[in-house]
Amino acid sequence: MDGACPLPLDEYPVVLLAHGGGGRLMQRLLDGLILPTLGVCAGQSLHDAARLDELLTGAAGRLAFTTDSYVVRPLFFPGGDIGTLAVCGTVNDLAMAGARARALSVSLILEEGLPMHTLWQVLSSLRQTAEAAGVRIVTGDTKVVERGRADGVYINTAGIGAVPAGVSIHPGRVRAGDAVLVSGDIGRHGIAVMARREGLQFETTIESDCQPLWPAVAAMLDAGLDLHCLRDPTRGGLASALVEIARQAGVDVLLDEAAVPVAPPVAAACELLGFDPLHVACEGRLVAFVPAAQAQAALDLLRSAPGGEQAARIGTVRGPGGQVTLRSRYGIDRSLDMPAGELLPRIC
Amino acid sequence: MDGACPLPLDEYPVVLLAHGGGGRLMQRLLDGLILPTLGVCAGQSLHDAARLDELLTGAAGRLAFTTDSYVVRPLFFPGGDIGTLAVCGTVNDLAMAGARARALSVSLILEEGLPMHTLWQVLSSLRQTAEAAGVRIVTGDTKVVERGRADGVYINTAGIGAVPAGVSIHPGRVRAGDAVLVSGDIGRHGIAVMARREGLQFETTIESDCQPLWPAVAAMLDAGLDLHCLRDPTRGGLASALVEIARQAGVDVLLDEAAVPVAPPVAAACELLGFDPLHVACEGRLVAFVPAAQAQAALDLLRSAPGGEQAARIGTVRGPGGQVTLRSRYGIDRSLDMPAGELLPRIC
Repeated sequence: MDGACPLPLDEYPVVLLAHGGGGRLMQRLLDGLILPTLGVCAGQSLHDAARLDELLTGAAGRLAFTTDSYVVRPLFFPGGDIGTLAVCGTVNDLAMAGARARALSVSLILEEGLPMHTLWQVLSSLRQTAEAAGVRIVTGDTKVVERGRADGVYINTAGIGAVPAGVSIHPGRVRAGDAVLVSGDIGRHGIAVMARREGLQFETTIESDCQPLWPAVAAMLDAGLDLHCLRDPTRGGLASALVEIARQAGVDVLLDEAAVPVAPPVAAACELLGFDPLHVACEGRLVAFVPAAQAQAALDLLRSAPGGEQAARIGTVRGPGGQVTLRSRYGIDRSLDMPAGELLPRIC
Repeated sequence: MDGACPLPLDEYPVVLLAHGGGGRLMQRLLDGLILPTLGVCAGQSLHDAARLDELLTGAAGRLAFTTDSYVVRPLFFPGGDIGTLAVCGTVNDLAMAGARARALSVSLILEEGLPMHTLWQVLSSLRQTAEAAGVRIVTGDTKVVERGRADGVYINTAGIGAVPAGVSIHPGRVRAGDAVLVSGDIGRHGIAVMARREGLQFETTIESDCQPLWPAVAAMLDAGLDLHCLRDPTRGGLASALVEIARQAGVDVLLDEAAVPVAPPVAAACELLGFDPLHVACEGRLVAFVPAAQAQAALDLLRSAPGGEQAARIGTVRGPGGQVTLRSRYGIDRSLDMPAGELLPRIC
């Protein structure tokens, strides 16, 4: 965190219900903390509709739009916080459609009593991550609910992105023979959040993989690779992402368990907690379906992207169908499905 | 509410944490209830980035973007519910920039234990209001938090709208001599919510004014009126809206209290509760700053719009400055300010 909280903390050490009331106190919270910390200029009220003219010039008719609410608990975890996540999650959803994020909205639901310093920390991360991802925060909203009616802060972001000409990335383009790649080792985010929440200590601190994925996607697009489908394996993990794509694309996928990169501390934590790493969320990894002939070129690019050292080819599209088959380390095949319900609640 | 809840309620009568986990149960909630009720086709997953190509054709470079989170308590009130509000609030923010809403995102934060039937009712209103407002729901997200970590359901919507060519509506265009109009009687929404929340009974049930404002704006634009500035007086009421515009525009505004339309039951309720109607929120009213020569034409159009019978000219822009002066019924002038803090928490 650079600098200091711009709002005098001795004046308002915590968020009050009145900070959400549309009056002078709310104006003070906006002008004194939220807008300057997010880097939104004073004249541009986050409460009005933002005009996108400049940001989207030349992007006519090739726009993508997405939203996510973030309710992660705890708010801070190794490798990030809810602010980091609120930017990464949304810009990554756009990147999975081949879109570079251009404009972001930020909507806050604050719990009465939230320490103002905590709010400032979260907003600072949010801004830093947005700057690093090259996306502008252009509009927003702030609500306050009574103590016990939220959990500190919930954040919603919505993003608008521009899809480069000629790019078309969706399950309908997946073909038999496609290689299935993953951009790094899986499961870090879910385990990092879980460990912090439950107060678990491992030999090594496991850091979340939370990061923007557009640089990796841009590198592959710039190299002229024909990306058929992309997905970020968040809630439900790699297994859910692959099962969903196999269904949507109507293809059978063979997944090679031994090829799936899992960092040893993550594997150890999963074993201890009884989780399958295939079901644990990532927030900075992608799965790519590419023509087999381009698999090596794609892997080389993924490996040179941040956090991509462990990128690997993990499977192959076999033909029409709709199932994912997991070939275990011992050569035994079984059908892979989504987890039934909840493994790790509130990891994003 | 037409029809019946599409998800068998004997199977899952309430929302479970597992419904937010990214697994099969979540898929069932999405495919079985959320997507069909919102009218989103099965192939178009609310969890992916939506492509806006068709919706925005021809709107290049003239887009507006806004977001709001809705935390109203109670979820249902006379004249609407949180679903109605989540559409009206956001399409109205766009309308105030002269933009017709085209695409909407819907993000849900559900509390564990929320009756599934309640969720279905809210989503049904949301869809009906979106259809009436002519806006397409194109993307979304669903999170579940533990019991006691929310208040039933919080909804965020973000909207993208298209601004017709030649339209430029913002405080910077307000001029000395401009007439200040309001599109109907004020304070209904705040009092309707408050009365329901506190179990207050009045002789007449006061219904919220919650409604989309685009039809009124479109009528004025179609008639060629030069709308300088528009604002919907939500949190903080008419007083906050006028104070904000006067400051942003750097002009002095004279507000004629006797001209401000307040329905007798709303006036009576305000008197009883000790509220000033000027500070009570509307969710279906607008304030317009127009050249004096066009004031009558604008009023005629506002009066023929739904709920606009009481539209009135309530003030005048006097010249440079930044203050709002309220001339009372007795001819006494005083400076008008925003309320300091919270009058009516969680009315939107």
